[in-house]
Amino acid sequence: MTIDSIRDLIPTSKKYTYLNHAACAPLPTPVREAQEQYLSTRSLEADVVFEEWIDHTEKTRILCADFVNAAPEEIAFLKNTSEGINLVASMLQVSPGDNVVTTDLEFPSNYMPWIDLTRKGVEFRVVHSKDGVLRYEDFEKAVDDNTVCLAVSHVEFATGFRNNLKALGELCEDHNTYFFVDPIQSLGALDLDVRAIPVHFFSCGCYKWLMSETGISIFYIQKELIDSFHAPSTGWFSLKDYLHYEEFDKDAPQITDTARKFECGNLNYYGIYTLNASIQFLRTYPRREERVMELSTYLMDGLQDKQVPIQTPEDHAGIVNFKVSNPDSVVETLRSRNLIVSSRAHGVRVSPHFWNTTEELDTLLNAI
Amino acid sequence: MTIDSIRDLIPTSKKYTYLNHAACAPLPTPVREAQEQYLSTRSLEADVVFEEWIDHTEKTRILCADFVNAAPEEIAFLKNTSEGINLVASMLQVSPGDNVVTTDLEFPSNYMPWIDLTRKGVEFRVVHSKDGVLRYEDFEKAVDDNTVCLAVSHVEFATGFRNNLKALGELCEDHNTYFFVDPIQSLGALDLDVRAIPVHFFSCGCYKWLMSETGISIFYIQKELIDSFHAPSTGWFSLKDYLHYEEFDKDAPQITDTARKFECGNLNYYGIYTLNASIQFLRTYPRREERVMELSTYLMDGLQDKQVPIQTPEDHAGIVNFKVSNPDSVVETLRSRNLIVSSRAHGVRVSPHFWNTTEELDTLLNAI
Repeated sequence: MTIDSIRDLIPTSKKYTYLNHAACAPLPTPVREAQEQYLSTRSLEADVVFEEWIDHTEKTRILCADFVNAAPEEIAFLKNTSEGINLVASMLQVSPGDNVVTTDLEFPSNYMPWIDLTRKGVEFRVVHSKDGVLRYEDFEKAVDDNTVCLAVSHVEFATGFRNNLKALGELCEDHNTYFFVDPIQSLGALDLDVRAIPVHFFSCGCYKWLMSETGISIFYIQKELIDSFHAPSTGWFSLKDYLHYEEFDKDAPQITDTARKFECGNLNYYGIYTLNASIQFLRTYPRREERVMELSTYLMDGLQDKQVPIQTPEDHAGIVNFKVSNPDSVVETLRSRNLIVSSRAHGVRVSPHFWNTTEELDTLLNAI
Repeated sequence: MTIDSIRDLIPTSKKYTYLNHAACAPLPTPVREAQEQYLSTRSLEADVVFEEWIDHTEKTRILCADFVNAAPEEIAFLKNTSEGINLVASMLQVSPGDNVVTTDLEFPSNYMPWIDLTRKGVEFRVVHSKDGVLRYEDFEKAVDDNTVCLAVSHVEFATGFRNNLKALGELCEDHNTYFFVDPIQSLGALDLDVRAIPVHFFSCGCYKWLMSETGISIFYIQKELIDSFHAPSTGWFSLKDYLHYEEFDKDAPQITDTARKFECGNLNYYGIYTLNASIQFLRTYPRREERVMELSTYLMDGLQDKQVPIQTPEDHAGIVNFKVSNPDSVVETLRSRNLIVSSRAHGVRVSPHFWNTTEELDTLLNAI
């Protein structure tokens, strides 16, 4: 599909210059239609269509797995990014002397569960950025043979710094360290292939670059690891034969050997239907990464021409952040002109997706 | 409002004889309208209306608190019943020698997290039902001064046995034991007053008697306990000043002192809007408990007249279960006549809500 025909499916494009996908994405028309279809049967039929929800969940699992080159049994649906991060942090086997490593550019949700492990005697290490950049040599200094887990975002939320997942994954391999990635600021925009990058887990909310909803998230765990981790939370969805839960073994409930064991209970089916439609929508334009990079480069060039100080480093994706003296009021003024961006890191954060245009970026550049 | 005018707001009542609220409730028209309103702004405005979502969440928190006579700071929104049960099980401070008590009538989700505590050396005790009844004297034998927590459903899912929460709560008080209640088979039908019953925690999915959606649940924790429990999962929503998360203290993140600390991350706002409308709908008919009890008594009388063996004991609510030789095929046959019930405990489970009628129960009685 062309960008023009894609934009016809995004009503927001007619109302706003919407450059705020790092906060929350608008919903395309086909996604809205899928929601309507779900809702009309949900409200009227209720339990009569329960099996359809289960069936659609499994189809969505296959779709999501395929989207990141994983196997369906490696995918669980959770409620948000945080849930998956806490899941990993809580199921790691740790002892005093171990350490975990994250960075000073992380969103609180990819920081708090790791600092909390100090309660179990784990040393908490933070890789500090320099001029907005997380340098490989600093990861190299922080990660050692006692590092249980390295946790980073694929793209950092405030300034858009992009971590080199391949290099960091290999560093983890060298130290027999688990590698956790939070791709909420990349998935949907950047390609992610869990076979090409040695990532053990990821957890990703869906309402940003995936152009889907809150209340639903994709959790990935490498197949080889599923059995070795005891699910910290259990429920009927964790059962091997969960649809025949009345017959479960009350002395020793049998847990499934797929990632579904981390799901526990009934899912957000509205979220499942929404996510399914969102991924299908994104797939209609496979060159999203290239396009997102083109747009952010165009914006950075334009800012440079205007001599606006840029906070986004060269290794970046999607997000562009520039410095102004009063970002909150700038964001407010732009919003009054239907130009939607955010204030982050004492600057203005702009996050155009693949469906945005250079004309829209010009509108922004002319407005500042 | 009258039952007739209520029924006009439930489109399902025109299509089905829907007697299956113990599985999943249909959605009333005002709930559907609230969803539409949320969705139209959600899809078009996205992050522009984020503050409205937060505002509506806090209004819904007040509404839910009021519904069970709790304080708003005692309410957290989670994703399903299981999440809240696991939350309680995982944050209890336990040592070998302690025990937890549940029953053989529980749904797997209120059983598995408790048996899982045996991994921490806790003794797992099950109160066994006799003829479908959980007797107080058996709880008395099971609960002792080493019991960390007693976990029961308010109403048991398969046959509708209703536990005496007041008596069990007092038993827990006598032994300094935490009392956890799963009210998913009662809340919305039966009244629940957390000040009248000494319950410490409850966790309740919303898609059954609350006539709301999957993916959202109400978690209650007694105010006095919030500080004494460390949240096992943390994220930006756990922060005291969560809307200014960029300024959080990276050495010691400051956690809020309300139940929100258990929420971690962005909520299912569609679920919040749905739940708000559902509770408002239920409140239009305050005599729900009386009505539900009238209907189930009417049904049990009718079954007795027909000499159909009933599996539901005298202490019951909402759910009526009767024995047939092949429940699955009976349920299937009834469904082909647009009469919706479920097969549970080798019987047929019927679960009429307050908006159902004795005429509908007659339709069922005539069909079997």
